[in-house]
Amino acid sequence: MTATLTSTPAVVRTIAEIRAAIRAYRAEAGATASVGFVPTMGFLHEGHASLIGRSAQDNGLTVLSIFVNPLQFGPNEDFERYPRDEARDLDVAARAGADIVFMPSVSEMYPTSAATQITVSGVTERLCGASRPGHFDGVGIVVTKLFNIVQPDRAYFGLKDAQQVAVVERMVADLNQPVQIVPCPIVREADGLAMSSRNVYLSADERREALVISRTLAKVPAWIDSGMNAAQLTAAVREGISSSPIADIDYVETLTYPALQPPAPDAPVSVSDGRIIVAAAVRFGRTRLIDNILISLPEAQPL
Amino acid sequence: MTATLTSTPAVVRTIAEIRAAIRAYRAEAGATASVGFVPTMGFLHEGHASLIGRSAQDNGLTVLSIFVNPLQFGPNEDFERYPRDEARDLDVAARAGADIVFMPSVSEMYPTSAATQITVSGVTERLCGASRPGHFDGVGIVVTKLFNIVQPDRAYFGLKDAQQVAVVERMVADLNQPVQIVPCPIVREADGLAMSSRNVYLSADERREALVISRTLAKVPAWIDSGMNAAQLTAAVREGISSSPIADIDYVETLTYPALQPPAPDAPVSVSDGRIIVAAAVRFGRTRLIDNILISLPEAQPL
Repeated sequence: MTATLTSTPAVVRTIAEIRAAIRAYRAEAGATASVGFVPTMGFLHEGHASLIGRSAQDNGLTVLSIFVNPLQFGPNEDFERYPRDEARDLDVAARAGADIVFMPSVSEMYPTSAATQITVSGVTERLCGASRPGHFDGVGIVVTKLFNIVQPDRAYFGLKDAQQVAVVERMVADLNQPVQIVPCPIVREADGLAMSSRNVYLSADERREALVISRTLAKVPAWIDSGMNAAQLTAAVREGISSSPIADIDYVETLTYPALQPPAPDAPVSVSDGRIIVAAAVRFGRTRLIDNILISLPEAQPL
Repeated sequence: MTATLTSTPAVVRTIAEIRAAIRAYRAEAGATASVGFVPTMGFLHEGHASLIGRSAQDNGLTVLSIFVNPLQFGPNEDFERYPRDEARDLDVAARAGADIVFMPSVSEMYPTSAATQITVSGVTERLCGASRPGHFDGVGIVVTKLFNIVQPDRAYFGLKDAQQVAVVERMVADLNQPVQIVPCPIVREADGLAMSSRNVYLSADERREALVISRTLAKVPAWIDSGMNAAQLTAAVREGISSSPIADIDYVETLTYPALQPPAPDAPVSVSDGRIIVAAAVRFGRTRLIDNILISLPEAQPL
């Protein structure tokens, strides 16, 4: 066994400190400076590590933020029990190549109750936007605050939260936020389960049953090739997931991406323009999981 | 007569150009770079010139934007007839010390209909926030876009639009926008009329009658010293302005500043904490003028 050499990232907890650290880096690096940013809620897994690794490849400095943002949780959601493990997170961050880890407190991020709200319409109407009211308002405000604090050149987001990517890209374009959004592919366990901090909630039985989501979504390209229209595709995915007796479906939808609007109802999906997403949110016991497959048409190749 | 030597500011009309110009300045100026920004709707007067002059004093580069923002006008307001005079504006900008004038088209600023909205609550409930629904949503979005495009170190706003200053300061704090807001005093004509691009709408008769606003507001410090409470102060200002037979009052309000909430109703204003604003909006013919006096208590000195 060879030990992998990693340097421990600097941990900063205040806005003043992170700004000073980035200012110092930019002053030193001069014209070649580039800051990559990976905003997370912590409890890091290999999906997060892939974002950090990609940022470390692309940029001179990689900033990881870990902040469980209360504003993006509904009143009956899992803010309080959301998993946290600082020591483990710092280890993952170091191995993946983060240079600075920004871990602010709630009062550092929201010193007064915020009077300013950011609302993105259109792309937030469906999927998690419909089933988690207010969720994307909370995402919009925290992402904007973090962008304004870190001022990154590039920010890395995982496509497991494909709607979040669409919302952030729309917001960045509408507000001219000076950052390039880099969407990164879903990272899966060896058996196909999409990596998620919430997977830790699953019992062994739920964990096994949850595979029905990725197994069903993997059939989507073939179903599109067979000429299904959007309604048939949604029904087939819904039926596939329902084959697990404990799968409690929140939503299954087939939409255009990134506009997240219904494609033409009757035509086969493969004649539509652009990209199509089939996205699902499914509860196993108390745990709500999301997953999706994003397809570039007309080739029907997964992205 | 001696000619005043001024250099003509560079005029840029696209977001890509203004970003490139500012990037070039920052690369050249290095650690000493500082960018001051004066966002305006053009038809510049000495009030705007004072903001530009202050920015030129404080910063290595001063950027002036001229953009009549459709989103901050209501459907029955004066967007179409809002006065425009590019040649004259460039002359004022040059004399005042602007280095770059950013004059984007509406389609450059809003290429698609914006799906992202910024709403600031609390400070927008009263005054122009109440009488011009949606106005401050339009201000919030355009100011945020311009800040993200120009990325200034400091931005200069006139206190004639005192509520706008309060809204922008609240938004900047809530969103951690990396810019320092510098509020600047109202500039008045020799006879007291607050400078405004809309003064050009006034007939000679209206122009004379409009002096009743500043003349009345000038009495506020003495009225506070005499022990008036907020309701009495508002009534006295309302009565003073009503002495003009053609003054059509939209609002007169006495509020705390910058929270813009009513002070304690019965106590004399002079025992309240912090700052008090007495603000008025008054129509003369088709022209709606605003003016205010901002007082630091307990000294009751105009700010």
